[in-house]
This record gives sequence, structure tokens and C-alpha cells, in this order.
Amino acid sequence: MQLHDFYLSGNCYKVRLFLGLIGQSAELLTVDLPKGAQKCAEFLALNPRGQVPVLVDDGQPLVDSQAILVYLARRYADTHWYPLDAVVQSQIAGWLSLTANEIHNGVARARIGLKFGRPVVLEDAQARGRQTLELVNAHLAEREWLVGEQPTIADVAVYPYLAMANEGGLDLAPYPHLHTWFARIRALPGYVELPHF
Amino acid sequence: MQLHDFYLSGNCYKVRLFLGLIGQSAELLTVDLPKGAQKCAEFLALNPRGQVPVLVDDGQPLVDSQAILVYLARRYADTHWYPLDAVVQSQIAGWLSLTANEIHNGVARARIGLKFGRPVVLEDAQARGRQTLELVNAHLAEREWLVGEQPTIADVAVYPYLAMANEGGLDLAPYPHLHTWFARIRALPGYVELPHF
Repeated sequence: MQLHDFYLSGNCYKVRLFLGLIGQSAELLTVDLPKGAQKCAEFLALNPRGQVPVLVDDGQPLVDSQAILVYLARRYADTHWYPLDAVVQSQIAGWLSLTANEIHNGVARARIGLKFGRPVVLEDAQARGRQTLELVNAHLAEREWLVGEQPTIADVAVYPYLAMANEGGLDLAPYPHLHTWFARIRALPGYVELPHF
Repeated sequence: MQLHDFYLSGNCYKVRLFLGLIGQSAELLTVDLPKGAQKCAEFLALNPRGQVPVLVDDGQPLVDSQAILVYLARRYADTHWYPLDAVVQSQIAGWLSLTANEIHNGVARARIGLKFGRPVVLEDAQARGRQTLELVNAHLAEREWLVGEQPTIADVAVYPYLAMANEGGLDLAPYPHLHTWFARIRALPGYVELPHF
């Protein structure tokens, strides 16, 4: 497998984390986002959406970080990561949607603005970020994992940007259940450290 | 099944459409969005995200329109709607992510602004909307369906807001492959008409 990757991207980290958790590895090919390499013709032929990560396995490109988790889980992982039960798959899909929209446009966008200096309405992104932190914290008040009794790709999808929310100027102190959940994830065999810079 | 529904919502229509396509029905319970009924305590107990649609089946609430498609497909539909193959499921998940983010914040948001008078940066939503229309049109240039050789829940997820893009002030004329795909969807047995007002 090859992963078209950018080290500091939370979406790329998400895939590296899951590869670690399921004991798989991929060759990392850096896409130079600051130079706009994701918008060049060669990369757009691989992913018309112009986004990292892209995973290539057996010559098949797979795009979108949530979709890559689904692929890796179906293909390589123990079934607890993405069980076949209809209710469980639906609940996981609901967290993948939240990751694609609310997390991307909230905690992740605040980080993009504050840490990378990109043009972002910071107050708006932070307000949306706080809504997500509250929602997930409340959900985890009486649960160990987001869905069911074992970790799933929902945890892997939601974790990265929430764990880096401080980089977007969001205070994680008011959310105790997030901290215990972070600790549970960090204790999993094969855990990969968050990107630092 | 009961569907907590709002007739004009494209996300609710998406579920009604799929119920029709798979020959299932649900009791429709209207949530009065203009009166903010989705934010009242009773509804938040059902869905902490405060959004429609919510499907309740055997007492189990299911939230998020994409996640409801996953549930219905796994539980009630022919397998072509959501095949088990890892690559196919991943490709479908990629379209569900696009629906949750780019479509929600593009074509759907432009419609919300123009048709419902909600505070929206219309030019921004329309610009993002055009990117999606171009992306999907190009993808369909040599394909009949978004993923594989048969309709899947990816088609059901992406269709509603693209088919109503004109209500957000977006011109669909430049996208011929969208029109032939719309026609294919409208010819499916059990097709449900778009909401009108």
C-alpha cells in the first residue's frame, strides 16, 4: 500500500493511526500541501477532489479519510472495528458524517486558521467546535467507546481533531469524558502518536 | 417504522426516496422546523444533534440521513444498494462524506438561503455548489451510476440536493451527465417525487 500523505494533516494522521492499530503499514508519499501539490494535474488524476489522504492498494486509489477507514476495516481488520450489524454500521456511519461535516468545519477548521494561518472565521469555527466537544463528551458520559462495547472506526475518525482541539484555541478542560476516552485510545496496541510541530 | 420528517428537507426526502425504492414504508411524523421543534427537549432526547430525519425502527432511533440509508440498505434492501465488497463500500462511503460536507455546505446551503431566507453567504455556497456539480458531472461522463454498475445508496444520497440545485440559484444546464443520471434515477421502480412548494 502507498499512502499519499501530509504529516500534519489530521485526516492523514487518522489513516496512519488506523494502520498502526490494525498492524498494517503503507509506504508514505508526502504531498506538499503548502506548495499546492494536491491541486496539480497528476494528483487530480488520482483524486479529482484534490485532497489528501489517498490510499493506493493493489493499484486501486481510495479517497476520503472516512472512506479509507471503511476500506481498511473491511479488508484487513478484526470485525469489531466495523461490525456487519445494520444498527451498528448505521451508528458508525452517523459518526463518519459528523466527522466529514461538523468536525471538519469546526475543530479542524479552527486549527487550520490558528495554527496554519489560513483564512478562517475563527469564532464561527470555534463555536461549532465547542458544540461537537459537548456532544461527544455527553455521549461518552456512560460509554467507553462511541459505538458498542469495543473500539470501531468511529473512534478512529472522531479522535484526531478532537484530541488536537487545543491547537484551534479550544479548551478541552471542561470535557472530562473526552480525556478518559483519549486515554483509552492511546492505550490501544499499535497506537500512533499525534503529529507535532 | 416511524420517520421524524419535514417535507421540504432534502435530507428527509432522501430517506423517503430510498424507502420508496426498496418498497418499504414508514409512518411520517412531521417535525415543525420553522417553529424550532427539532431543538426542543423531547426531540433532543431522540437525537442530541437536533436534526431531522430520525428513523425509529423496533424502538431504535437512527440519526443522520446518510446513516439511515446505511441502516435501511443493510436491513431491508437488495445487496446491490450497499454491496459488501471493501472497495465498493469505501467508494460509497466517500460519496456519503461528500454529501455530509460539500453538498450540505454547497448546493443545500444555497437553497436554504435563497428558498428559505436563512442567513447564508450565498456566493460562497453557490461557488462550492458549482464545484460539486462539476465534480459529479465529470464523474458520470462515462458511468451510469456513481459506484459500480447498479444504483447504490451513494446515488440516493447525492441525488436530492443536486436535483434541487436550481432552487439555490444554480444553473444545471452546463451539466449534461447530471441530467441523464437524474433521468435514470427517476425511472427506477418506486421513485418518489422531489418535494415542491
